[in-house]
Amino acid sequence: MNKFVIAAISLLGFGTLASANELKETNISLETAKEIASEGVKACTAKGYNVSVAVVDRAGILRAFERSDLAGSHTVDAARAKAFTSASSRVPTGMMAENVQKKPGAAQMVSIPGFLVLAGGVPIKIGDETIGAVGIGGAPGGNLDEACALEALDKVKEKLK
Amino acid sequence: MNKFVIAAISLLGFGTLASANELKETNISLETAKEIASEGVKACTAKGYNVSVAVVDRAGILRAFERSDLAGSHTVDAARAKAFTSASSRVPTGMMAENVQKKPGAAQMVSIPGFLVLAGGVPIKIGDETIGAVGIGGAPGGNLDEACALEALDKVKEKLK
Amino acid sequence: MNKFVIAAISLLGFGTLASANELKETNISLETAKEIASEGVKACTAKGYNVSVAVVDRAGILRAFERSDLAGSHTVDAARAKAFTSASSRVPTGMMAENVQKKPGAAQMVSIPGFLVLAGGVPIKIGDETIGAVGIGGAPGGNLDEACALEALDKVKEKLK
Amino acid sequence: MNKFVIAAISLLGFGTLASANELKETNISLETAKEIASEGVKACTAKGYNVSVAVVDRAGILRAFERSDLAGSHTVDAARAKAFTSASSRVPTGMMAENVQKKPGAAQMVSIPGFLVLAGGVPIKIGDETIGAVGIGGAPGGNLDEACALEALDKVKEKLK
Amino acid sequence: MNKFVIAAISLLGFGTLASANELKETNISLETAKEIASEGVKACTAKGYNVSVAVVDRAGILRAFERSDLAGSHTVDAARAKAFTSASSRVPTGMMAENVQKKPGAAQMVSIPGFLVLAGGVPIKIGDETIGAVGIGGAPGGNLDEACALEALDKVKEKLK
Amino acid sequence: MNKFVIAAISLLGFGTLASANELKETNISLETAKEIASEGVKACTAKGYNVSVAVVDRAGILRAFERSDLAGSHTVDAARAKAFTSASSRVPTGMMAENVQKKPGAAQMVSIPGFLVLAGGVPIKIGDETIGAVGIGGAPGGNLDEACALEALDKVKEKLK
Amino acid sequence: MNKFVIAAISLLGFGTLASANELKETNISLETAKEIASEGVKACTAKGYNVSVAVVDRAGILRAFERSDLAGSHTVDAARAKAFTSASSRVPTGMMAENVQKKPGAAQMVSIPGFLVLAGGVPIKIGDETIGAVGIGGAPGGNLDEACALEALDKVKEKLK
Amino acid sequence: MNKFVIAAISLLGFGTLASANELKETNISLETAKEIASEGVKACTAKGYNVSVAVVDRAGILRAFERSDLAGSHTVDAARAKAFTSASSRVPTGMMAENVQKKPGAAQMVSIPGFLVLAGGVPIKIGDETIGAVGIGGAPGGNLDEACALEALDKVKEKLK
Repeated sequence: MNKFVIAAISLLGFGTLASANELKETNISLETAKEIASEGVKACTAKGYNVSVAVVDRAGILRAFERSDLAGSHTVDAARAKAFTSASSRVPTGMMAENVQKKPGAAQMVSIPGFLVLAGGVPIKIGDETIGAVGIGGAPGGNLDEACALEALDKVKEKLK
Repeated sequence: MNKFVIAAISLLGFGTLASANELKETNISLETAKEIASEGVKACTAKGYNVSVAVVDRAGILRAFERSDLAGSHTVDAARAKAFTSASSRVPTGMMAENVQKKPGAAQMVSIPGFLVLAGGVPIKIGDETIGAVGIGGAPGGNLDEACALEALDKVKEKLK
Repeated sequence: MNKFVIAAISLLGFGTLASANELKETNISLETAKEIASEGVKACTAKGYNVSVAVVDRAGILRAFERSDLAGSHTVDAARAKAFTSASSRVPTGMMAENVQKKPGAAQMVSIPGFLVLAGGVPIKIGDETIGAVGIGGAPGGNLDEACALEALDKVKEKLK
Repeated sequence: MNKFVIAAISLLGFGTLASANELKETNISLETAKEIASEGVKACTAKGYNVSVAVVDRAGILRAFERSDLAGSHTVDAARAKAFTSASSRVPTGMMAENVQKKPGAAQMVSIPGFLVLAGGVPIKIGDETIGAVGIGGAPGGNLDEACALEALDKVKEKLK
Repeated sequence: MNKFVIAAISLLGFGTLASANELKETNISLETAKEIASEGVKACTAKGYNVSVAVVDRAGILRAFERSDLAGSHTVDAARAKAFTSASSRVPTGMMAENVQKKPGAAQMVSIPGFLVLAGGVPIKIGDETIGAVGIGGAPGGNLDEACALEALDKVKEKLK
Repeated sequence: MNKFVIAAISLLGFGTLASANELKETNISLETAKEIASEGVKACTAKGYNVSVAVVDRAGILRAFERSDLAGSHTVDAARAKAFTSASSRVPTGMMAENVQKKPGAAQMVSIPGFLVLAGGVPIKIGDETIGAVGIGGAPGGNLDEACALEALDKVKEKLK
Repeated sequence: MNKFVIAAISLLGFGTLASANELKETNISLETAKEIASEGVKACTAKGYNVSVAVVDRAGILRAFERSDLAGSHTVDAARAKAFTSASSRVPTGMMAENVQKKPGAAQMVSIPGFLVLAGGVPIKIGDETIGAVGIGGAPGGNLDEACALEALDKVKEKLK
Repeated sequence: MNKFVIAAISLLGFGTLASANELKETNISLETAKEIASEGVKACTAKGYNVSVAVVDRAGILRAFERSDLAGSHTVDAARAKAFTSASSRVPTGMMAENVQKKPGAAQMVSIPGFLVLAGGVPIKIGDETIGAVGIGGAPGGNLDEACALEALDKVKEKLK
């Protein structure tokens, strides 16, 4: 980097901007994400299911993750992909899976890069704003994964009231 | 989705949470990102360089992009990767490239998935908060890409004051 | 590079060819691509849809891109893939999606690398020549994405007359 | 699946084997992995570093993960890759990075699929047996990531005595 | 690596942990895996099928592999993916393929990264514990691949009694 | 490489083996592959279809390739994947596509890595031995691609008699 | 696709635009590309080198390809990547390789997605306009690959005068 | 597939060709490949190294594979990549690694897709013809992997005389 560039950068503070027009967003904290992940594992373990639970932030990036002692290798990516799908689309993956079956024209939604349209992903919202999502994989059916995800969210809801 | 699940979801509003603990973040708007992209192309075109300019949000996801009429195919991914690298590490990629050369122990930073440690990526900040980054590729040297990026940020700075 | 090679290169001008037989093609300019991207976002925003709009050139390489403030992460790749699919096949992706449903033998067209056979991609043509394509993702249905794409093309059409 | 197959499967219990010759292995539990991940984030946060901490099992598969509130997107894969590298090679990635610099013949060890040879990955051992690894990414130097990893392991060591 | 780090590492023995809480697992040995691979090729060859046979460990990582003289290139990855799918899900891939057809909501299980839901993968178990899996590809039908896998497991079962 | 190794290598001639047991195979020559590729383009051009034609060797590795002046970008990978699929499975991809539709249990054959189960790939055989395959993509239907492939093979057949 | 959409599409002719502002480009024809590929193989064969020769169009998309009878599997992708690199950057890859060695700040140009910065790729130009590139791989040194590429271009030059 | 196509295919026997011009090649058998893999594991185990051994055919496709009981997950791909590199380039990877260090212009040979330029891969030859390669990974140095590979080849050599 030559001296002009260094000078320019230091003047800009790496490009500082005034801000009124930029977006104000709420994003899930690690603290809350950890609770959801732990409660998700707990809910599924209580029913005898070995699962992975992934919690992603509003952009779909992993924030917290747990894989129970007996959950298979594939559950890591399955849980993460369900969470990404749900955070980015802002609806539960189970609802998307139903749409895909009903509307033939929507079938290839399943091919969008990074998507896994299988029940078990649920968005995490504050009011109308999606701040992240939880994805669970490993139970013997996606609807069972989803039930654990909803229980986990319910636990956190009480705590935060 | 069975009825219990639908009921549970509607109670939760897909998992609505109370919020005090979650993160308040500022993120770059499309409006500002578009201006930076256009100014970046303009700055490089004025010097005779054919470039791509990518602007990503704070999570590194593409927000706006322009490729000038004569910029090669590879500049699309190069610009996007420089912007991702800079948004996620919060320093200019040119500064990272210098570190990689000086510190042998840091050499493999270049292998982090998604990274391109080549000058031309600059974070976009409001005060200390990184709200996105711009990445430029296609000029005959990374330092020249970076100069265009800094000019583009400077243009937007004046406008927003 | 040894001296012979350098000499050979300078004689050839890096391999200059006489030209009568080569192809004369029309390709979309950045200027037009930017207008289409902006009009696409505008058309969908007016209907309350948060979308990404990608405009690719005749070879399917990204030329311009915009993601609206609330469009999810997955819309980046979805929009880009729809535009690639449409530029390369030269038909709207919605029409391809219908064919895939009707002709079982064509089902695996959806597996062609880079393809996303979901409505929302529309070729940009001058007469019979495809010079690029626009792809939109993020509306609650591919047909809605496609409608925005057509509105955007219509806006540009008037302007260019 | 025809009837013969079903019968054969039920006879075999999906292929039950007698066992004396198979391997007895120790693998990290979710409980311990979670503690290490939390202590890793805590150790780095105390020094002002925003990091991701990944804990993988003995096969290199993710077991637990945490990303602190301000850690960038790239730290997810960086932490995970460091942990994989260390679990599979059974040495700290910082030690590998030194070897790569000293021995030119070993340079391409950095290209082994899945490897990230950058300090911050440390194997988790019981006696001589590697039962997993921790990987940290996001501090301003790999040696600083490694220091947090060692602190985290030290915390867990006391607890388990 | 500075001296403090080296000292810390040597104190920890790269992070040695006390162990009562960690998992005790049984994993398939190379010896057994080789027998299963050889018997799988033999069983299919006897019927005139040219196949690949992959045996993976409990985490789904390849342990032993054989491709018969006339088996095509694609059978390498097909056999490996079937084995991974079966080791991680702990059921035969043929059974999974039936479920996918019967339960529309489960259809996208086929999109889980690394999965190939086609008959021919069978878990290898000791009692209830899955210690690996065998996957076969190349016979003119997945059910035929599966039959060879079951024969191979049956051969090994006798031997080990 | 130390001296012992160099000596060992020179003794072995990099590992020379006596040979009676190894396989004698016939593989397609570049000369024949080029003719098939050219005839494939010619056959489709005569019907007004813009296509890519890929010819692979018996292992599925590309030997010759042509893309006509107006064939889209996606036809490169489509043609190559059809040829790979056909060379490795040793049947026409059109026949595979029919099987996939008829046998639900075979549906996921389409997910085998590298496969594209869409008509247009045809094996090239000498007697019963598959020595390569041709794949064509770009015509308005896979059956039309396949017809061009068969015409091309027919042309070469006469020539070689 | 509903009726409104079909109507809109037919009005637009899939989005027909007036054209004065769009780009007029020259692109390499299949005919010329084939000659260059054949001459490249011939030039290298005459010197005893077994090579692959890839010719790409101005966007870097494969137009013609030949692999000589004894050229290894890796030469397919090596030749194609050299041609892409040269078409997109518009300079010979040998010249880029020299720059990368001389300018430490440019080192990571080698990590740009799709790039292979190894001699053997040469742009094909008409005057100043790059209309494609040739890439050769398989000779015992990149400079030897490049020499064959230059010979091939020289052959075509005479023919076209 | 319509009737004309089926008729055409049956006439051609899926495209049967007369053969005088096609290539006669020798390829490694599964039988020999298995012996080399077993001897490779044995040689390294005798020295206390836990390794994977991959044997590929002349096209670089996996033929036989063994991973010893304690070899890490990364050794699977490392061994396979070394074998591919050596089969396709027809020289030992250790020799390639030395060239890469000596000739700066050859440095990026390491970036050729599929290559791993680290000692431990050795071609398997009959006279001058490469019929496959062995690759070993997991010993504490590539030169040690290579020594095991050479021992394995030496064992097979005696046996085949």
